[in-house]
Parts: sequence; C-alpha cells; structure tokens
Amino acid sequence: MHASIFKMGAFPYLSKLEKIKYKPVSVREVLIEMKDLSELMIDLAYSATLFNSRDLAEEVLELEERVDNLAYLLHMNTMLAARDAEDAEEFVGICKVATATNKISDAAADIAYLVIWGIGLHPIVREAFGAVQERLMRSEAKSTSIIVSKSLGELELAARIGVDIIAIRRGKEWIINPSEGEKIVESDILIARGAPHGVEKLKQLADGTLKELG
Amino acid sequence: MHASIFKMGAFPYLSKLEKIKYKPVSVREVLIEMKDLSELMIDLAYSATLFNSRDLAEEVLELEERVDNLAYLLHMNTMLAARDAEDAEEFVGICKVATATNKISDAAADIAYLVIWGIGLHPIVREAFGAVQERLMRSEAKSTSIIVSKSLGELELAARIGVDIIAIRRGKEWIINPSEGEKIVESDILIARGAPHGVEKLKQLADGTLKELG
Repeated sequence: MHASIFKMGAFPYLSKLEKIKYKPVSVREVLIEMKDLSELMIDLAYSATLFNSRDLAEEVLELEERVDNLAYLLHMNTMLAARDAEDAEEFVGICKVATATNKISDAAADIAYLVIWGIGLHPIVREAFGAVQERLMRSEAKSTSIIVSKSLGELELAARIGVDIIAIRRGKEWIINPSEGEKIVESDILIARGAPHGVEKLKQLADGTLKELG
Repeated sequence: MHASIFKMGAFPYLSKLEKIKYKPVSVREVLIEMKDLSELMIDLAYSATLFNSRDLAEEVLELEERVDNLAYLLHMNTMLAARDAEDAEEFVGICKVATATNKISDAAADIAYLVIWGIGLHPIVREAFGAVQERLMRSEAKSTSIIVSKSLGELELAARIGVDIIAIRRGKEWIINPSEGEKIVESDILIARGAPHGVEKLKQLADGTLKELG
C-alpha cells in the first residue's frame, strides 16, 4: 500500500523524472520545516545573487527539491489521515499553507537560477538585495576550528558575538534552526545571521584563523 | 503614447478588470519596494493567520495589488528603457527578480485568503507560524498617544524598547522602512517588529494607555 506519484521538476536543471514514494510523516513537522526552509531560501537566494555565489545558489536549488518532496509527502499524508468531511475541511487549510510555502521556495529557486545562468547581477538587483549582506553568512567549519565538536549551547554565539546559526548543512542533510545540543562537525556548512562584525568573527572562527571566542 | 494593458486579478476578490496605465518610474526604486513589500507581506500573512486578523489579511491583499501594479510598471519601464540587445540582457535579470518577488507576494496573499475565508486556522498552522508572534505587531496611533507628531528619530524606539517600526499605513499609502525623519500621524497603522515585551509596550504607547517611553 505504498502510494507513489511521478514528479517532473519545474526546471530543466531538475528535469529528471523522480519517483516520490509515500511514507508516513508528521504533518506538523513537515509544515514547520517547509515554512522555515522557504524563509531561509529567500535569504540564501538574495545572498547568492549578492555574492554571485554559485555554491549558495546550488544550495537553494537543493532545498527547493527538498521542499517539493516535502509538499508531496504532506499532501499524501493529509489525504490518508482524513477520515471524514470535517477532517478534510481542517486539512485543506494546511495544504494551502504548504502550497504557499512551496511557491515561496519556487521564487527563491527562480532567483538562484539567475546566478547559475550568470544573469541578474545588474547593480539595481544588488542594491535591492543589499540589506541581506548584513544578515547572512555561509562558512565551512574546518578541522582546525575551535568550534568543531562544541555544541551551540556551549558556544553561546548569540550572547558572545551577536550571531545565530540558523542552518547547518552536513553532507546532504540540512539542520534548520539547530537546537542548543547540536554539536558542530568538521566540514559542516554553517549559515549564520547577525550584524556584519559578528558574522565576520564567526567566519574566522570557522576558518580556524581566530582561535578564541570574544 | 500612454501604453496600457488590462490586468485580471488572480483571485475572485480582486477579479475586477483594472486598467494599468504606463507611467515613468524609477526601476531601481520599484524593485527595492517590491522586494521589501514581499518580505513584509509574508510576515503580515503569518501574523494574520496567527491572530486570525481579518484586518491584517486585508492589508496583505491590498499590498498584493500594489505589488502587482508595481510589477506591471517595472516591466513596461524596462521595455521602454532598453535600447539595444545589451540593455535587454541586463534588464531581463531585473524582470526575473521582479517576477520572483511578485510570486512571493502572491504566496502571502494565498495565506491571507485563508483568513478571509475562515479556513487554515488548524493548530498545526498556528504552530508553524508561531515564531512570528514574537516579531510582529500591528497597532493604530490614537489621538491621545504621546507618539503622535513625533518623528521616529526622536522616539528612538529601537534603543529604548527594542522595537523597529518597519511599515506605516497612512490611509491608502504605505511607508515601508520609514526614515528617521518620518513623523507619526494620528490614525497611522504601525507595523512593528521586536521582542514580545517591546511590542507590547509600543501597543500601549500607540493606544494612549502608556504615557511615557521607558
């Protein structure tokens, strides 16, 4: 009783036909993740444009695929959970919200494609996205960094340097809004938000060039 | 030589046929406004759902119409500004970004419609949008409020109570990211962002129940 559907990616880049298998998921958790991811993706897409970063743009596209998959899972799970008309009425709102977050994630991908295709870097676009520069940074935790093997709770980055780590990419896995207990692992890609001074400090800490927390 | 096109609203609520007349605008300013509005609208749409506020939802729909109109103006202005193939290549990126911000604003409107139609208030949706509660507030500046006739620079709300006024609606006009010199006028609708304690204080100041700044 494994439902499955075929999904055709909205963009040539993802145009491989991919089979999405039903699996039971928590609708609550999926919706929260979709919402958090869609907001993160907008910031990442702006940053990708601003820094002309193909890396960041590709991360947006990976996330877009993830959000797409989450949307399918959410829709399949609500279908199977609905037992009567009342359930259906309640769940339709959840599906509409999921569709809206998916639309936001599509918009972020549209922006990311401009970077992949090498267009859209007109000064006007950079200026429109300028405010993002002050709030987002991407860096990799090197083996020599003092933050590796420490938990976010131990590091207290918000209190010490005014920076929040809002997402960690570990290989193919994304940890969005990581908890206090999350430990940083070598090669983690950290996405952080904060004032320019703070994010610069975190970059140096992650690089291993700065050896102590202020 | 006034170009004009007809626009059919994407939703029944706005399905009146509305004529959009060409007028010269600054592409730069329009793009920045579209981006700022689209981000504001997402926050407003989440808040509208969370507080089940028809008022906020209707503000999102008004903004959606504004963003739609800005998108048309931007596209018409880039068309007329492009003199050669090089211009066209440069401007196409701007148009793609404008289209993406428009998509984000459509998603915000989709969410706002759930409030207008009275659906989508499932506890799971509220939970997904929960973080917004801590960052956004809407209040009206009453005639008895001490903040009326004061400029944002004088009020120093960020330093004093940790709150930023990110938008003001004055009748039909929206002032997004108001400057320090902007004076608050009686009946202004203030949209503010900040910690729960701070936004509560601003609400009381705007209501006229709190008579001094902390």
